[in-house]
Amino acid sequence: MTLQLFELVGTDDTRPFSPYCWRTRMALAHKGLDHGSIPWRFTEKAAIAPHGSEKVPVLLHDESPVVDSWVIANYLEDTFPDRASLFGGEGGRAAIRMINSWGDLAIVSGIFPLIVADIPAHLGPVDADYFRASREARLGRTLEEAAAERDKAVIAFRRSLEPLRLTLRMQPYLGGAAPNYADYIVFGGFQWARVVSPFRLLAEDDPIHAWREKLLDAFDGLARKSPGYAV
Amino acid sequence: MTLQLFELVGTDDTRPFSPYCWRTRMALAHKGLDHGSIPWRFTEKAAIAPHGSEKVPVLLHDESPVVDSWVIANYLEDTFPDRASLFGGEGGRAAIRMINSWGDLAIVSGIFPLIVADIPAHLGPVDADYFRASREARLGRTLEEAAAERDKAVIAFRRSLEPLRLTLRMQPYLGGAAPNYADYIVFGGFQWARVVSPFRLLAEDDPIHAWREKLLDAFDGLARKSPGYAV
Repeated sequence: MTLQLFELVGTDDTRPFSPYCWRTRMALAHKGLDHGSIPWRFTEKAAIAPHGSEKVPVLLHDESPVVDSWVIANYLEDTFPDRASLFGGEGGRAAIRMINSWGDLAIVSGIFPLIVADIPAHLGPVDADYFRASREARLGRTLEEAAAERDKAVIAFRRSLEPLRLTLRMQPYLGGAAPNYADYIVFGGFQWARVVSPFRLLAEDDPIHAWREKLLDAFDGLARKSPGYAV
Repeated sequence: MTLQLFELVGTDDTRPFSPYCWRTRMALAHKGLDHGSIPWRFTEKAAIAPHGSEKVPVLLHDESPVVDSWVIANYLEDTFPDRASLFGGEGGRAAIRMINSWGDLAIVSGIFPLIVADIPAHLGPVDADYFRASREARLGRTLEEAAAERDKAVIAFRRSLEPLRLTLRMQPYLGGAAPNYADYIVFGGFQWARVVSPFRLLAEDDPIHAWREKLLDAFDGLARKSPGYAV
């Protein structure tokens, strides 16, 4: 049995940075599943088109592709049921779907304008051009304009994390006493930022900061050891 | 065994309207537990002080008080484990804690300024005075000023529901194929609004509207039969 994960990188093959790929990386580690990594860049659409996707993560289980981070998490849970659970039962799977939606919006979309200007420096020329054009269209402004507002925008971002902060005042992880996929959904966004940007997203006295530190140390420091900025 | 629930009402004892009490009402119905209702008003602090609370819901199980809607939900789950589960396992309990936080902020705090001006009409004079003074202090403006902005504010409120909307495009309920406590957390806020205010919170073509309709019909129409506005 082999597992191979297409992961988004830039000029450094050892520096995967997609928030969605990090969800999958952490999920594979949680299940204790060894896997290979296939570096993939924004403009390498042809490499994953045969697997039925335009985006990563794409997981190859032997020769079969599994596409989309949420689908992959469910696939791992169902294919390896004897390994540590990612959801903690069917009620967990259902409720974590909501956390997945919240993570996509509050975390990924929330962090995006704060770090987007730092990403091209990690990309080769072709990818950097693609990235700038596509992301400026999404933002409706230049990357530099987004960066100029980030000291102010981060205040609203931190405020938007209040549901997470409240929860972490009540229990150590979104998964309860130990982390599970709910945590990896949210952590993936912070790890994306850490890998590509020196911008400080969290105040040091924020309970979310302490939680993130613990997840950086999880699985023998998997996320902390990955190249990134110590913020 | 008797269960008695202190529930917030105004001039009409049969019109309970607290979003938190509705979470508990729906949870008791989910468990199939008959219970009595003890009408309680904002200024009747003395009635619940002996039970160690300043707020409702307070549940009396025989003579023992259980205080706070989240604590009550956990108490019911643990005390009546053979009845339908509110959380769907420990992973569900942990993840739904996050939905509880999101519900307190996005739903209860989000709806509050939109309907607050409609509440005093349902209260007797003493409660109406208390309510206006305490809520205007919280709002930092008059109830009428909040009402004047609600046609505009509801647009941002609807946008803030996107994590819920995305989830309900993927599965029928936050609980998955059937509703559970995650749904009741969110529904409690909408039912609060429905009981006290004619203001339209949701567009009719919103998937959240269809989901709310199903919950209004749940448990033989428990919520729909309660006095309210058909919006």
